[in-house]
Amino acid sequence: MKAAVFVEPEHVGVREVERPRIEKPTDAIVRVLKACVCGSDLWWFRGISERPHNTLVGHEAIGIIDEVGADVHDMKPGDFVIVPFTHCCGHCEACEKGYDGNCFNMEPGGNAGYQAEYMRATWAGTALIKIPGTPADYTDEQIASLLALSDVMATGYHAAWSSRIEPGDTVVIYGDGAVGLCAVIGAKLLGAGRIIMMSRHEDRAALAREFGATDIVPERGDEAVARIMEMTNGAGADRVLECVGSEQSIESAVRSGRPGAYVSRVGVPHDNSIDVNALFWRNVSLTGGIASVATHDKSTLLKAVLDGEINPGKVFTASFDLDHVQQAYEAMDGRRAIKSMIDIAEA
Amino acid sequence: MKAAVFVEPEHVGVREVERPRIEKPTDAIVRVLKACVCGSDLWWFRGISERPHNTLVGHEAIGIIDEVGADVHDMKPGDFVIVPFTHCCGHCEACEKGYDGNCFNMEPGGNAGYQAEYMRATWAGTALIKIPGTPADYTDEQIASLLALSDVMATGYHAAWSSRIEPGDTVVIYGDGAVGLCAVIGAKLLGAGRIIMMSRHEDRAALAREFGATDIVPERGDEAVARIMEMTNGAGADRVLECVGSEQSIESAVRSGRPGAYVSRVGVPHDNSIDVNALFWRNVSLTGGIASVATHDKSTLLKAVLDGEINPGKVFTASFDLDHVQQAYEAMDGRRAIKSMIDIAEA
Ligand SMILES: [Zn+2]
Ligand SMILES: [Zn+2]
Ligand SMILES: [Zn+2]
Ligand SMILES: [Zn+2]
Repeated sequence: MKAAVFVEPEHVGVREVERPRIEKPTDAIVRVLKACVCGSDLWWFRGISERPHNTLVGHEAIGIIDEVGADVHDMKPGDFVIVPFTHCCGHCEACEKGYDGNCFNMEPGGNAGYQAEYMRATWAGTALIKIPGTPADYTDEQIASLLALSDVMATGYHAAWSSRIEPGDTVVIYGDGAVGLCAVIGAKLLGAGRIIMMSRHEDRAALAREFGATDIVPERGDEAVARIMEMTNGAGADRVLECVGSEQSIESAVRSGRPGAYVSRVGVPHDNSIDVNALFWRNVSLTGGIASVATHDKSTLLKAVLDGEINPGKVFTASFDLDHVQQAYEAMDGRRAIKSMIDIAEA
Repeated sequence: MKAAVFVEPEHVGVREVERPRIEKPTDAIVRVLKACVCGSDLWWFRGISERPHNTLVGHEAIGIIDEVGADVHDMKPGDFVIVPFTHCCGHCEACEKGYDGNCFNMEPGGNAGYQAEYMRATWAGTALIKIPGTPADYTDEQIASLLALSDVMATGYHAAWSSRIEPGDTVVIYGDGAVGLCAVIGAKLLGAGRIIMMSRHEDRAALAREFGATDIVPERGDEAVARIMEMTNGAGADRVLECVGSEQSIESAVRSGRPGAYVSRVGVPHDNSIDVNALFWRNVSLTGGIASVATHDKSTLLKAVLDGEINPGKVFTASFDLDHVQQAYEAMDGRRAIKSMIDIAEA
């Protein structure tokens, strides 16, 4: 079968590899229909973070179950499913508390390579999200939104959810990438009164507004913080969602919160230094982390997509076939696409 | 009048100084009955943190209002009051959100010198906590508990409150000083099911048990974390209250939490470096800060003391008169007293 592989920085190729097999009775093999490129993939694409060469890539997909292991009773071949980037057992302490992204039984190296014709999905009975009906029952827009539930929408929602938004809260969002845009949707779902998106890109700002942002702030760094203070009577925002992961963004986020604010991070962090005393003296809480994809999809997000209440699929602004996967990465790397979809097979 | 002053590291003296006067219409002058020494005072007493020489000291007291400014309508001379270490305006955004310890209108250098015969209390109408009746209406034990509401009990409660304890939660407490012991009381008030106190001191462990601790763990560092993991099926605790402020303690606290845990800090931090990525990858939230003394006292703690539901005054294990204030500090510095009371005047 064909699969995308990381060749070296700046270069993703398509190779003929062996079709994955059921290895454990809790596995399923999924025939991938659509996959996509994640902002976090750009770290290794750009050579900033290390990744072994010639490894399978991709961690977001939707598809059709092709085969299941002996212990998978809740899913069967033919089922239409979301394959989250997390793969949770459903019964450990982390899963039970709603933190399935931290499942204690996640298989290291499991679920490798979603940008491929087939993939092995571990813990299929609990980790996969079953979509009612078949792909033919949905419009292209709905299919895109279902694909977004494999990571980006669940991660944006996780930012909002972790920050414990209360109805009417003023929420600031740092990062106008696909995750930050989905965080706007999450903040709105949770009842935020005012949603301030930090953005200096016309297309992203427009989408943020469409998703529910009430204000757009183009400033950065010190000026961004000054602007937020001006907009909140000098107090700071109730909640700040940090969807970038850089040191500057986290620092600005912390400074943008009022005493007692929650600052929630979902951008994969690439710096680990922040002044934690700045948190202490102002009672600012630092929260967030790896998204609880299964928990959020099952409790809230799948229904919201099926009801047409949210349309996160709009973050996909470009599509490519698997043979052009290199272009899918390049489009995001060059910020020409907010998020790239990869069409792998017809239903 | 007599007042305690910081002379130089390891030396606190008593000096004749001018009696403070009303400076602003929102001030009151309080005749101090009892003050006390705080664990945070030991930082400058030991010379670890800088403090100008010959400055008035002390930030926790109870007393009788002697005089009020023209704009103080809710307090009058003769009223029996708690003087919190915070001094909040009651109407700014921080005060309104319940973070009075971060009041935007706190007067820099206001409320100096609680270990004195008289003190100037700023924002008297909102910052002071009125105690019903007169000192003669209370036992020595109750008086001690009322004094504890000026800081240590409110700070211990703040740790528990900031960590958003849910009924039945397993809560670990690092720090068996007066604040950590009061955090036990706070955790119990908020419904914790299991309260694990880290302590290797017989007297403090006994008081922790009396306050509601269900388990005592003497280990430190890596062994402490291993022990917590053993006690929680390898998952970690739901909530961790960090009442020390050292780098090692914060690091152990973070590692002791389960995925999704809240780690709450109220120990005044003296290091600002922690691995914030360790928080991210396990969805551990870092919260806490300067206590909301007025908010907690008025909403919860004063009533709990008056009802006899809590007895935080038991943390005072030694008393001194003002002339022996040096000994009051030494007793805490040498860990011979959990917390030192200073008797300044009879009612
Ligand atoms: Zn992703
Ligand atoms: Zn699990
Ligand atoms: Zn204190
Ligand atoms: Zn205030």
